[in-house]
This record gives sequence, C-alpha cells and structure tokens, in this order.
Amino acid sequence: MPTVPTIIFDADDTLWHNMNLFADTHERFTRLLSAYFSDAAELVERLEATERRNIEHFGYGVKGFTLSMIETAVEVTGGRVGGEEIKRIIGFGKEMLGAPVQLLPGVQETVEALAGRYPLAVITKGDLLNQEAKVARSGLASHFDFVEVVSEKDADSYARLFERHGVEAASVVMVGNSMKSDIEPVLTLGGKAVHIPYAITWVHELKAVSEELTESGRFRRLEAMHELPTLLLDW
Amino acid sequence: MPTVPTIIFDADDTLWHNMNLFADTHERFTRLLSAYFSDAAELVERLEATERRNIEHFGYGVKGFTLSMIETAVEVTGGRVGGEEIKRIIGFGKEMLGAPVQLLPGVQETVEALAGRYPLAVITKGDLLNQEAKVARSGLASHFDFVEVVSEKDADSYARLFERHGVEAASVVMVGNSMKSDIEPVLTLGGKAVHIPYAITWVHELKAVSEELTESGRFRRLEAMHELPTLLLDW
Repeated sequence: MPTVPTIIFDADDTLWHNMNLFADTHERFTRLLSAYFSDAAELVERLEATERRNIEHFGYGVKGFTLSMIETAVEVTGGRVGGEEIKRIIGFGKEMLGAPVQLLPGVQETVEALAGRYPLAVITKGDLLNQEAKVARSGLASHFDFVEVVSEKDADSYARLFERHGVEAASVVMVGNSMKSDIEPVLTLGGKAVHIPYAITWVHELKAVSEELTESGRFRRLEAMHELPTLLLDW
Repeated sequence: MPTVPTIIFDADDTLWHNMNLFADTHERFTRLLSAYFSDAAELVERLEATERRNIEHFGYGVKGFTLSMIETAVEVTGGRVGGEEIKRIIGFGKEMLGAPVQLLPGVQETVEALAGRYPLAVITKGDLLNQEAKVARSGLASHFDFVEVVSEKDADSYARLFERHGVEAASVVMVGNSMKSDIEPVLTLGGKAVHIPYAITWVHELKAVSEELTESGRFRRLEAMHELPTLLLDW
C-alpha cells in the first residue's frame, strides 16, 4: 500500500488573498504621493526596487514593506514628503497587518475534505506574528498538523522542516502559487509539487524552473484549489 | 540516575548584548530630533509609549521599533520632521539589524563547556530573519539542538515548543534575563529557571513574579553566565 502523502500548503495567495492587499496599498501609496510624483507605474517600480534592495535587511513581510514605502516616499520627493503623509503610510502598514483574511475560492471546502484523509500542514514566509495571526484568523488552524513560518523558502529550509516533522520529501505534496518558493525547492528535494497560480505574481517570486524538474512527473499545475482532491486520488 | 536537564537559553541580553543597541539608538534618535524636541528623556518616554501601543500590530523586533521611531518623530514634531531625518531613522534600523553580535562575558566558554554534557537550545522572540542571523553570526549555532523564534514567550508558547521537541518541562532549565518572558512562564510549567539580569531591563519586560514561584526551589538568580555550570552540578 502506498504511503499517505503529507499535503503542505503555502499560505499567502495559496490559501488566502495577499497580493491584492499589496496592490491596494500600491494604489493608495501612489495616490498619496501624486502631488509629488505623477507617474504611478514608475513610482511602483521605484518602490519595488527599494524592496528588492531592502530584503537583505528586512526579509519578507508587511513591516519591511512599510519601511520600504517610507524610504521610497522620501527619495522620490527629494525629502519633501510631509510628516502627515509618512504617518498615513505607517497607517497603511497597520491596516494591512490587521486586514481580515479572505480565503481563496474552494479553499475551505478543500481543506475540510482533505483533513482526516491526509496529514495537512502549512509552510509560509513573512513576519512571524502576522503569519501566525492570519492562520488563527483563517479558521483553518485546527486542520493543520504543523504551521511553520520561515525567513526564506529554499531547499535547505524545507529539508530542515521535513526532518523536524519526520516527513520524507518523497511523500510530500507541496501546494503553492510561487514557482520559486513553493515548487522548485520541493521538486529539487524529490517531492511532488502542485502549482496553483494566483492572479498576481509578485515580481520577486518570478523564476524559470528547469524542464528536468517540471517534466519529472512530480509536478502539476491546477487552475483552482477545488481540483486538488481529485488530483491526489490519481497521483 | 536523574534525567539530564535540557538547558534552554534566551538570546538577546542573555547570550549577547541587545538593549545597548536600543540605548545607543535612543541616543542617536534624540540627538537627531534635538532641534524640535529638547527633552531627551521625555522623547524616549514618548517613543516607549508608541512602541507599547504598536506591539499588537508589529510584535517585537527592530523593524517594528524603527516604525515606532518614525511615528514618534512625526508626532513630536507636529509633522515638521524632514524627509532626510526620516531616512536617517530608517538607517538606524538597518544598522541595528546588521550590527555585529557581541557575546556577553563568559557566554562562549560556558556554552562550550556545557555542550556535550547537556542538550542545549535557544528560545527567543523578535524578527525571525534578524534572530536567525544573530544566531548564525554568534558562532554558537552548532552547539544548539534547536533554535526557536517565537512571536510571544508565554506559558502556552513554551508548552508547545517543549512538546514539539519532546522535552518535559520538569527537565528544563531556562536561562534568561527577563522575569516576564524567560522565568515566570517556565516556572509556571514546572521547569527550573535561572535569572541572569542584564544591565538594562526593557520597560516592557518588567514584571513582579509571585513568591510562590520564586520560592519554589526551582528558581535561582546568578550575576553572570560563568556561574551556571557549577549551579547545574549541584541542582
């Protein structure tokens, strides 16, 4: 009899909406600074460049993003941005941290249907407190055997977590929206991986994954979460 | 034969200096804003009040502290703080995140002496990426069976971690500088706890712990880390 695989979900943009919060905030940010900087698209590019530069200092998550917004606001206005505007930006960050968790379509039904039949878990990256709070607010926490927040999702960090939880890579099915953070590392370790793209892909998560891995028979792409249970039965 | 206890260290201000970085930054912050706000002590109080208010949003760590500095700067200057000053504050945050790890006196020798004789571990709170980076930079990482970064150090979070690592609370010796975050929760769970005060105690960590716990025979206070091995032999 084959081993029952452990199904591990990414969280942001896999279980619930996340990039839309960032997109909304980009819009509020460009509107806030429109008197200084009228080209919204270029402003977002400047912000993304700041974020990229700051990841080594701040890692992933809303707090670092908020600091990058402030830094960008100072830079693009040549230091003329006002104190009240800075405070509004901090407010954007707090609102993102406190935003309600909006599950993606089919997530609740799918997680409930899989629970009890498969061991389920979550591996996500970002700010520890914020990620824990979102799992708690999602209403799904009781279905997961473990929830891990890591600072970087690469093959090493997955391998460490699999060892900690006594899971063989070969019996893992990782489900996520990021080729770079969810799919490639787990395929590299010999596990299976299911890519469910989100409407928006964060520029930092774009990555071409080798055909050797995607053609290994251990990779699938689905359009939506509700297709997962059927795939697992046949795979 | 008695069980060998697992020795668990807090990190900031127990293994290495941390509050001194905050104290230095307080000084730089008050100097930066001295043209707007001349009473440095009151300014630090205002900053600490902002931090306290923001902990629910930001949790612990340097990124949240940096956002609180910016928010305080805007408030105390009535919005007049300049963009370049805001950028300097972000720079203070980055310098704190990148600061070299300065081990406290006796830490290296003590950890090396205990390693191999006892299982050793670290439980700390703060920004995930920053705490991991500090453990890596400390040169001590190889001595620890596990390193856990949590968003809050209370009895529940310790209990979860003890279960995860298969450690009985009764066979734990927790070593830390904070009565609130290191000592009380572990005593409450039935473990032993060693308080090694740091020169500065963060206002958020001040807490009176009940005599019932501190008089239980499971609590000791030491002046410095090098006294720990002898205590463990006799306890």
